[in-house]
Amino acid sequence: MELIDGNKIAADIVAELRGAVAALPGRKPCLALVRVGEDPASVSYVKKKEKTAAEIGIESRVILPPPAITQPELFALIDRLNADPAVDGILVQSPLPEPIDELAVFRHIAPAKDVDGLGTMNLGKIAQDDDSGFVCCTPAGIMELLARSGVRLAGKHVVVIGRSLLVGKPFALLAMQKKPEANATVTVCHSRTAGLAALARQADVLIAAIGRPEFVTADMVQPGAIVIDVGVNRVPDPARKTGYRLVGDVHFASVAPRAGKITPVPGGVGPMTVALLMQNTLKAYRQQHPA
Amino acid sequence: MELIDGNKIAADIVAELRGAVAALPGRKPCLALVRVGEDPASVSYVKKKEKTAAEIGIESRVILPPPAITQPELFALIDRLNADPAVDGILVQSPLPEPIDELAVFRHIAPAKDVDGLGTMNLGKIAQDDDSGFVCCTPAGIMELLARSGVRLAGKHVVVIGRSLLVGKPFALLAMQKKPEANATVTVCHSRTAGLAALARQADVLIAAIGRPEFVTADMVQPGAIVIDVGVNRVPDPARKTGYRLVGDVHFASVAPRAGKITPVPGGVGPMTVALLMQNTLKAYRQQHPA
Repeated sequence: MELIDGNKIAADIVAELRGAVAALPGRKPCLALVRVGEDPASVSYVKKKEKTAAEIGIESRVILPPPAITQPELFALIDRLNADPAVDGILVQSPLPEPIDELAVFRHIAPAKDVDGLGTMNLGKIAQDDDSGFVCCTPAGIMELLARSGVRLAGKHVVVIGRSLLVGKPFALLAMQKKPEANATVTVCHSRTAGLAALARQADVLIAAIGRPEFVTADMVQPGAIVIDVGVNRVPDPARKTGYRLVGDVHFASVAPRAGKITPVPGGVGPMTVALLMQNTLKAYRQQHPA
Repeated sequence: MELIDGNKIAADIVAELRGAVAALPGRKPCLALVRVGEDPASVSYVKKKEKTAAEIGIESRVILPPPAITQPELFALIDRLNADPAVDGILVQSPLPEPIDELAVFRHIAPAKDVDGLGTMNLGKIAQDDDSGFVCCTPAGIMELLARSGVRLAGKHVVVIGRSLLVGKPFALLAMQKKPEANATVTVCHSRTAGLAALARQADVLIAAIGRPEFVTADMVQPGAIVIDVGVNRVPDPARKTGYRLVGDVHFASVAPRAGKITPVPGGVGPMTVALLMQNTLKAYRQQHPA
């Protein structure tokens, strides 16, 4: 079993981006990070994004509207960022508090600045095998993690557990693209799937993105399979100062010995997501400032 | 084995649409059909669409630009149709002659008039489980065919052979939507898939959309499976006046005895595609003329 070190691979990408940003003439790329409310995970994610941007030399603009902001007010805020020539990318941190319609907010971001890739246009472009858009950061991060770990998808059977808009569906579309780095056979399973364990066992590459702590157990994994754990679940742990620990969607202790390669949680997919957000921000900048 | 009669089911939908259109106040829905060149299949498809529109009471406007039309000229034509308040839906018949970029043309149609559903916005909406858009007619037709044949997808394993933009990918996204009529587990196979026969044999519902005559043989089909044949292939047949006959992507003679239900070619998916185009045109009309 080989551990896929997401921290290391993400650090490589961050270093590459730092070099690329340093070579840019004129102003640096700018990413607007909008966070509504004080969800502890959101606070920590936005902090991490801000820190990584700073490391690369990307300017970040953290915007913290009042937690009671209405949907029209949030739209107006996004309108201003869409129109601001000094802003290249816009990310609205999920989850948004009720009763805001999160999807409507993602869609309100101009496609050219939608570096989180959750708007309709950027999703549709993945289905059209079109590289000009922004691929949502988690699936893009998984593709990069696989490529930089020497995993070739072509002809392989990829089984994705979970059909979310943020991970399962876009990753499935990416992996089945008609491209040398893709060309996978793809199965998408989910909570309603009959015989999920038997399907998962067919996977050459298994993507666990169902959002249930330690859902994938050893009996669901083919010996030698590549296992990518997208889950980030907080489970109570009185032994910790924080009162919780993070576990993935994979029962690591039992699965790891069977897997060919596996990502840990934390330190697997998580850091990749942040690195790919920065890559998308640089791409947005370049598209808006053609050389 | 039960034959799924696409002609009968499409005729039911056409009758329903005729009733709905008759009840509309004011002008009738209008569909612009743009055909470039004299590809014989395109000529026959557009004729069929024109005829079905007339049966329903939908006005059709067949536009036959010169075969040597350039891409900018075709864009300008679409711009005029996009801006024309008397036109509700626009279909540009595929295939377009070289060197026109077909995808760019589909994307040029305003999303609100893209009744063929091949533009980026309408594809992205399927991935977002959003019903406000237009689902491309063939996948929408297959969903309707299954529903009206009493086939429930929830929890079933759907295997799609073929990952095209027109059928395989949008159908996969539709079948995995979080909706009572969907909720399927979905596998997408294609020309690069290793072990395709074994995967196809797992299908409760098998969608053959790979564009190869009689590709699916009996050994690839689980006894009792529902088999939907999307293929329309012309194979030479000197015994026919036309010199060819139509065959599907399924070897009907050997597969039919094993299947639970199966669609014939012709008379299966084909007529459904036309019926769903009309349904989309009525939907476009209603969205543009709210009651």
